[in-house]
Amino acid sequence: MSMINGIAASNGIAIAKAYHLAVPDLSFDKTTVANAEEEISRLDAALEISKQELEKIRENARVSLGDEHAEIFSAHLLVLADPELINPVKDNIRNNSINAEAALDETATMFIDMFRSMDNEYMKERAADIQDVTKRVMAHLLQVSFPDPALIDEEVIIIAEDLTPSDTAQLNKQFVKGFTTDIGGRTSHSAIMARSLEIPAVVGTKSITSSAGNDTMIIVDGMEGNVIIDPSEDELATYKAKQEAFEQQKQEWAKLKNEPTVTTDGVHVELVANIGTPEDVTGVQNNGGEGVGLYRTEFLYMGKSELPSEDEQFESYKAVLENMGDKPVVVRTLDIGGDKELSYLQLPKEMNPFLGYRAIRLCLERDDIFRVQLRALLRASVYGNLKIMFPMIATLEEFRQAKAILLEEKDKLTADGVAVSDSIEIGIMVEIPSTAVAAKQFAKEVDFFSVGTNDLIQYTMAADRMNERVSYLYQPYHPAILNLVHNVIEAAHAEGKWAGMCGEMAGDTIAIPLLLGLGLDEFSMSATSILPARTQITKLSKADMQELSQEALALSTADEVEQLVRQRTGQ
Amino acid sequence: MSMINGIAASNGIAIAKAYHLAVPDLSFDKTTVANAEEEISRLDAALEISKQELEKIRENARVSLGDEHAEIFSAHLLVLADPELINPVKDNIRNNSINAEAALDETATMFIDMFRSMDNEYMKERAADIQDVTKRVMAHLLQVSFPDPALIDEEVIIIAEDLTPSDTAQLNKQFVKGFTTDIGGRTSHSAIMARSLEIPAVVGTKSITSSAGNDTMIIVDGMEGNVIIDPSEDELATYKAKQEAFEQQKQEWAKLKNEPTVTTDGVHVELVANIGTPEDVTGVQNNGGEGVGLYRTEFLYMGKSELPSEDEQFESYKAVLENMGDKPVVVRTLDIGGDKELSYLQLPKEMNPFLGYRAIRLCLERDDIFRVQLRALLRASVYGNLKIMFPMIATLEEFRQAKAILLEEKDKLTADGVAVSDSIEIGIMVEIPSTAVAAKQFAKEVDFFSVGTNDLIQYTMAADRMNERVSYLYQPYHPAILNLVHNVIEAAHAEGKWAGMCGEMAGDTIAIPLLLGLGLDEFSMSATSILPARTQITKLSKADMQELSQEALALSTADEVEQLVRQRTGQ
Repeated sequence: MSMINGIAASNGIAIAKAYHLAVPDLSFDKTTVANAEEEISRLDAALEISKQELEKIRENARVSLGDEHAEIFSAHLLVLADPELINPVKDNIRNNSINAEAALDETATMFIDMFRSMDNEYMKERAADIQDVTKRVMAHLLQVSFPDPALIDEEVIIIAEDLTPSDTAQLNKQFVKGFTTDIGGRTSHSAIMARSLEIPAVVGTKSITSSAGNDTMIIVDGMEGNVIIDPSEDELATYKAKQEAFEQQKQEWAKLKNEPTVTTDGVHVELVANIGTPEDVTGVQNNGGEGVGLYRTEFLYMGKSELPSEDEQFESYKAVLENMGDKPVVVRTLDIGGDKELSYLQLPKEMNPFLGYRAIRLCLERDDIFRVQLRALLRASVYGNLKIMFPMIATLEEFRQAKAILLEEKDKLTADGVAVSDSIEIGIMVEIPSTAVAAKQFAKEVDFFSVGTNDLIQYTMAADRMNERVSYLYQPYHPAILNLVHNVIEAAHAEGKWAGMCGEMAGDTIAIPLLLGLGLDEFSMSATSILPARTQITKLSKADMQELSQEALALSTADEVEQLVRQRTGQ
Repeated sequence: MSMINGIAASNGIAIAKAYHLAVPDLSFDKTTVANAEEEISRLDAALEISKQELEKIRENARVSLGDEHAEIFSAHLLVLADPELINPVKDNIRNNSINAEAALDETATMFIDMFRSMDNEYMKERAADIQDVTKRVMAHLLQVSFPDPALIDEEVIIIAEDLTPSDTAQLNKQFVKGFTTDIGGRTSHSAIMARSLEIPAVVGTKSITSSAGNDTMIIVDGMEGNVIIDPSEDELATYKAKQEAFEQQKQEWAKLKNEPTVTTDGVHVELVANIGTPEDVTGVQNNGGEGVGLYRTEFLYMGKSELPSEDEQFESYKAVLENMGDKPVVVRTLDIGGDKELSYLQLPKEMNPFLGYRAIRLCLERDDIFRVQLRALLRASVYGNLKIMFPMIATLEEFRQAKAILLEEKDKLTADGVAVSDSIEIGIMVEIPSTAVAAKQFAKEVDFFSVGTNDLIQYTMAADRMNERVSYLYQPYHPAILNLVHNVIEAAHAEGKWAGMCGEMAGDTIAIPLLLGLGLDEFSMSATSILPARTQITKLSKADMQELSQEALALSTADEVEQLVRQRTGQ
């Protein structure tokens, strides 16, 4: 038995054998062949079986994650069927009498290099698609097995260096009981997906793939961030008990599903969820969410070859609003750029993308894109309780400009006889330090604030949260962060507005007492964090937490803050 | 006559003909030669004349900019003399009977590609050196003239797409009357160099190289940011008058050289200078600086093949301290990383270098490097009035750790019988929002603050100041920035400490009244800004500026702040 410590990324205990998701050895010898047609048949067979696999993967992704996520596999299927790629491979076999592996490799490499060299993001993404698909076909030619999360049909825990969006899109909860990776952090893509899928996960272990082989029995403790390799009988028993306790706790939490979130001294706060697609609404409802605090609309724009149409967007927004009934749905307008690229938009390469041309900065310049989204939102507004918020607002001018465009589109729709709600609140994300500092000035003009802590922390600490060398500076409990959050809430309340939070911090058990004390009105988090948070809050007194948070504001370091909260709340 | 508008980068008016600094056409035909030895003689001649030029350039750089800046030309000279590069070229000529141009190109390209592919910054920089030198030799082989700022011997204004550090290192003030570029901003390297050299400059014109040819008469107005191409007689007269008025103003300023900086209501503030090398001290003295507010020690580490030794550093620090007498010298410890790479350190590639592993973050991990610098500083401390400050401090833990290392080294030196000053103040740069927000907590432990506005603004606005697409967000007058500066000054004064500023903002004529009103104690700027700033401050009343700044703190936008200051101070 040995134990590796990583970053707790998604709650729960998983016990199963390891499944190492690694790219197999695809090396081959280039040979001369006597019968070219035989090689072509081998190639056709490998193409066919790859096609069948990809269709299955796409279907699985559609069921477990929704249409949006499934789209990348359609792109892969297009590659497989592309005569401009496949015919040159066959010509290469015929003309040069070489084996299919060599012909495929040479031709695909040529296309990949060509597309990559094009300094065009769309073409570069096509190069990546071709590379993915080529690997799969090559594996079938070589008859080596290609590990495929979507094809897993027994209970396993996936171990991998990292999981790509395409990997996580294929995870089937029925069989994949958990996962653990060498790299990544609490806010990395794979960690967010794990929480959304409710699969226990530990990321950033640095060494899991070198410490455990295929079929090794392992335990993933997503609460403590531990991975136990080859556990003893005693260990197994301990963790099975812990697993049962967690399941029992989940049932306890479930009892609060239809209850409001009220502190011991009778103060109600709103617990809402972050979602990415209309399909996520089911999870919000199952977990007792009182609304949607952050609908990230980027997924509508990703994994596509062109911008989504107004109607396409309208249908998605309408679906979410209708399904949420009269509960609030806060939609964030397009936050693209930075680490989120759109292949078809050809955004400029930047030296510091997190400090660059993204979100509202891009939308105000490309208002052709922005207006389409706003029209779709306005048209959908009559189907529920819509609130719109703009991301990455750094100056009041930006907010005024964005709001003016929104009102222009509203007027146009009304003039055209299209029904638009008259009670849409218009707010902003507070994720740039300037806006948190100048919240008093903003509060006069916005309807609400939602603090986006993931970005606010990284900018306030000047530390890229994806960069492991400085990740120790990602400190949600740093007194500077608390003081900024405090400033935002005070400013909102002084103007009779509300303040929410939609970063990871809103669902954090150390942060919750502080945020409650600072007067936060709305906590938006992963759907699966809502019931634990409700359980926690219903045991706290707001008056006590106010006292606690005032003390915390004056402390010197994040460590001191954490110790204070632990001591006072018995965590 | 036509006019192009750019960014005013360095004060003054220059009138001269344009000198286009562009790489010439170096294309050639590959030919077979009958007499290889003749080609080798041609090559040797081209190498020899290149060597003579580079020696001259290095000497010019040494005189005008100091030893540090001259070092890159030593690296170039080493390339020219490297038998491992030159012999293969000659072999190529002999073995393949090809002309010298083709042989040089083939061999150099091979080395450049090889070094570049090595994913090692030192090797990549060697590749760049070889490329620079090869171009020069190729120009001589082809007998085309290679524009060389160091060889200019008549009065010109340089026009270029951009100027590299190596270009600016070669500018001779006697002949280069000004420069103007297509790209760059007020804080880009070339702009800072222009101010340090006191050469009028307009950068970021987008189109100067396509609008003016060699020998076109142009005027650079470094105050307004305008470039006039092919001026009329009237225009010439107007600008000559403006130039004279500026020279006269400079003489007015010069009268204040030995005067203190006192407001109309009798408050003294300190005007000090930012420097990069010991040679810069002359400029500080000529411009009446009351000390050095920021000694950037990076230059000691740059353009070298290894870390500077303790003795080498000691000599530089001692030279600055001795030359400044009893005036304060604030030395910033190594701020490397981000956009400033050291080839021999092999720092990791980062997605967002400005939010990455740099400055104190690197020094605390690589304390082997840090301790050498601290020992050199401590040994030099007895030669003047030394203050030490740490860059990029985001948490109190970092400051405590850095200070502890400093005190450890001091104890070691004292134990070894080395004299160390007992009155060294230890402070920090305030350039990360968290530190500005939590200034109250920091003020209890540091001896002083120096606000680094270049970084503070870019982090607070989450906008890379080098990225032109978001440069509109680099807003020194944004109320959030003023509130942060206010918070820092208040926190310092509450603990009886002093607060300075060493970013570009400290010398800005709109910012100066505000900073004076907010209570800033020390303004550190380019040496050439000191006398204009002193002239401005001696005409202002601190009490009035306090009132002004209080109003500004409550405004909503940077524009409103600027308008208020202009209106009240008649600018």
